[in-house]
Amino acid sequence: MLKVLKFGGTSVGTLERIQNVANIIKKIKDDGHDVIAVVSAMSGETNKLIEYSEHFSKTPNKCEMDMLLSSGERVTSALLSIALNEQGYEAISMSGRQAGIVTDDAHTKARIEGIDTTSMKKAISDGKVVVVAGFQGVTEEGRVTTLGRGGSDLTAVAIAGAINADVCEIYTDVDGIYTTDPRIEPKAKKLDKISYDEMLELASLGAKVLQNRSVEMAKKLNVNLVSRSSFTPEIEGTLITKEENIMEKPIVSGIALDRNQIRVGLYGLTDRPGIAASIFTSLADENINVDMIVQTKGTDGKTNLDFTIPTTDFESCKKVMSKFDNDDSTKIDYSDEICKVSIVGVGMKSHTGVASKAFATLAKENINIRIISTSEIKISMIILEKYAELAVRALHDAYNLDK
Amino acid sequence: MLKVLKFGGTSVGTLERIQNVANIIKKIKDDGHDVIAVVSAMSGETNKLIEYSEHFSKTPNKCEMDMLLSSGERVTSALLSIALNEQGYEAISMSGRQAGIVTDDAHTKARIEGIDTTSMKKAISDGKVVVVAGFQGVTEEGRVTTLGRGGSDLTAVAIAGAINADVCEIYTDVDGIYTTDPRIEPKAKKLDKISYDEMLELASLGAKVLQNRSVEMAKKLNVNLVSRSSFTPEIEGTLITKEENIMEKPIVSGIALDRNQIRVGLYGLTDRPGIAASIFTSLADENINVDMIVQTKGTDGKTNLDFTIPTTDFESCKKVMSKFDNDDSTKIDYSDEICKVSIVGVGMKSHTGVASKAFATLAKENINIRIISTSEIKISMIILEKYAELAVRALHDAYNLDK
Repeated sequence: MLKVLKFGGTSVGTLERIQNVANIIKKIKDDGHDVIAVVSAMSGETNKLIEYSEHFSKTPNKCEMDMLLSSGERVTSALLSIALNEQGYEAISMSGRQAGIVTDDAHTKARIEGIDTTSMKKAISDGKVVVVAGFQGVTEEGRVTTLGRGGSDLTAVAIAGAINADVCEIYTDVDGIYTTDPRIEPKAKKLDKISYDEMLELASLGAKVLQNRSVEMAKKLNVNLVSRSSFTPEIEGTLITKEENIMEKPIVSGIALDRNQIRVGLYGLTDRPGIAASIFTSLADENINVDMIVQTKGTDGKTNLDFTIPTTDFESCKKVMSKFDNDDSTKIDYSDEICKVSIVGVGMKSHTGVASKAFATLAKENINIRIISTSEIKISMIILEKYAELAVRALHDAYNLDK
Repeated sequence: MLKVLKFGGTSVGTLERIQNVANIIKKIKDDGHDVIAVVSAMSGETNKLIEYSEHFSKTPNKCEMDMLLSSGERVTSALLSIALNEQGYEAISMSGRQAGIVTDDAHTKARIEGIDTTSMKKAISDGKVVVVAGFQGVTEEGRVTTLGRGGSDLTAVAIAGAINADVCEIYTDVDGIYTTDPRIEPKAKKLDKISYDEMLELASLGAKVLQNRSVEMAKKLNVNLVSRSSFTPEIEGTLITKEENIMEKPIVSGIALDRNQIRVGLYGLTDRPGIAASIFTSLADENINVDMIVQTKGTDGKTNLDFTIPTTDFESCKKVMSKFDNDDSTKIDYSDEICKVSIVGVGMKSHTGVASKAFATLAKENINIRIISTSEIKISMIILEKYAELAVRALHDAYNLDK
């Protein structure tokens, strides 16, 4: 098999951990596989370089920031190659450029436009381990670019797609995707397999493990993604793959919790055509990400709107809302004491009664549901934040996720 | 004027010092000059990376060492560019590759084979300051190489030669070349100008400032080299140039002292043809750098040899000598209590009496001269090391170098 392995900053955070990564690769090579390893900068290095740049400028030249920040991954790739060569496993480091990664010129958040895999294929066919400096590429003009947050994951997935690898394993300090956050529900179980779409909906469960941008790219390029830990490499991780590859589809795969939500209520709006459109257009213009929306009619002919936004958009949302607060009868109400609980599972498509079980479960615990929204594979509910853990545990139990 | 400026590790050793370098460049730009700055890694960075590599291997893969070590200069070049851009001086960093520097594939000690100056010329004609990461290049195949000790100086000199710059200024923490070591003779004076050949002979005076490899390349490429300090940029440094550019040729330019010498004496050798040749061939085979040689005939028909070697070659020299120590009448004698004092000046070529003045000066101080050797522009004398400072001061005075 041809395996693309990605090791994040924590996995290569010290010289001892880089040696540990070399040992993981050796074992995989000994098992007869070919390996392309994509590495991040040693944890702390990128922040150190950013601090350096801030000494000179609050808005440093982005092109130069890319030259600066790309150096951390180069160091790790060389060190890992040295460690592998020392133990008799021929290895060659490659910068983004040397690996053939061409991006657009959106410095500090570039997008990969293509990968010329010639050099990597040559090295692999020579029996070498290829160690690629993640997070970086070059423009057509030869300037160094970086890919922004989660960039090394993107490098790994893009390479796996371009070179048609059998699997792309993302190593972090977490050994996979769980049915829910084990800190809330100790009975949470690690999933063996999960579909791309479920993973995207369970983002909050995997946020520290997999960025949505990488999962989306894996889905697009049809790359089998594995989330596993470099600290416990003996434990098989979670395979994220296309739905067709999952034989036994569970009705519910996991329960996600998102605390970073603000509920916005607009009450007593004069109900004229286009009022909702004009509010949400104004919000969209400010790049505010509106999540769940409920519109209800009051008995007085007025209309009420409830919707949620991420906590980070709170200040800019308040500014937009002030424009609509010019009617004496309009009331605006914000609450950050809420959270979003989501039930995710591809099996929902073909099973009924999943939603009603959720409502019944929360009702039994006397938890009031403020807003509900559903998609083909997800049911999300806004509830008071103080019930968050209770709701997660009750739902986890109701759908037998610990079995 | 087009100026190539080189800033060494100490000159860019902290963020404050990088800002200081930016200020130096700004002033030169304000004076209407074009600037290509070549930078080293921040002092300590390269050693840190070497220590990292030693964690994994005592003989790390050289190709990977180059990938590793080249990152330090990239960081400095990006930071300096950020500092310049922030202050409104458009700047662009370039790695060795981006600057067009092609080398052979002798990793960790590569030689520059050519420089494609297209990108640098384009940036200069756009009014930009070009900031080149020193010490590095790429092979024809695109692998990163480093140039070994003094590599950033070589980068600067080679660029100045390739792009036909008016001057190549090497900034260190010393403000030029002195008539002798000011720690020995406080009356030593900074030289305004000196020829390449004098500089090469005065190596010990400039050792911490300019490596002979760079001076040799400057001579070959006819590059005007200036040694000056980034800590006192207002002080003009010393210009190292071709002899024809120096109008008023001093008879003596400086007095150099080299303490790292061992005197080897071979006495009572049977005087047969080829004996000296066989000894010095054996030494050359071991890469031992023999400096001064004197052969004298004893009254008994035997021959005596005295020569000097660098202290670093002492052990390997002893091994070679043991081969010639098989004759009962042969005596071998080593002394490390000696030093070499040299008087250097292009004016010697056309003036007589320079050597006799040196001998008389030392005789007056009761200093015995053990070996003498002369070249067109140098007189070197081996004396006991305890007289080193006395001899330097006496000679400095005798040739009026403080005037």
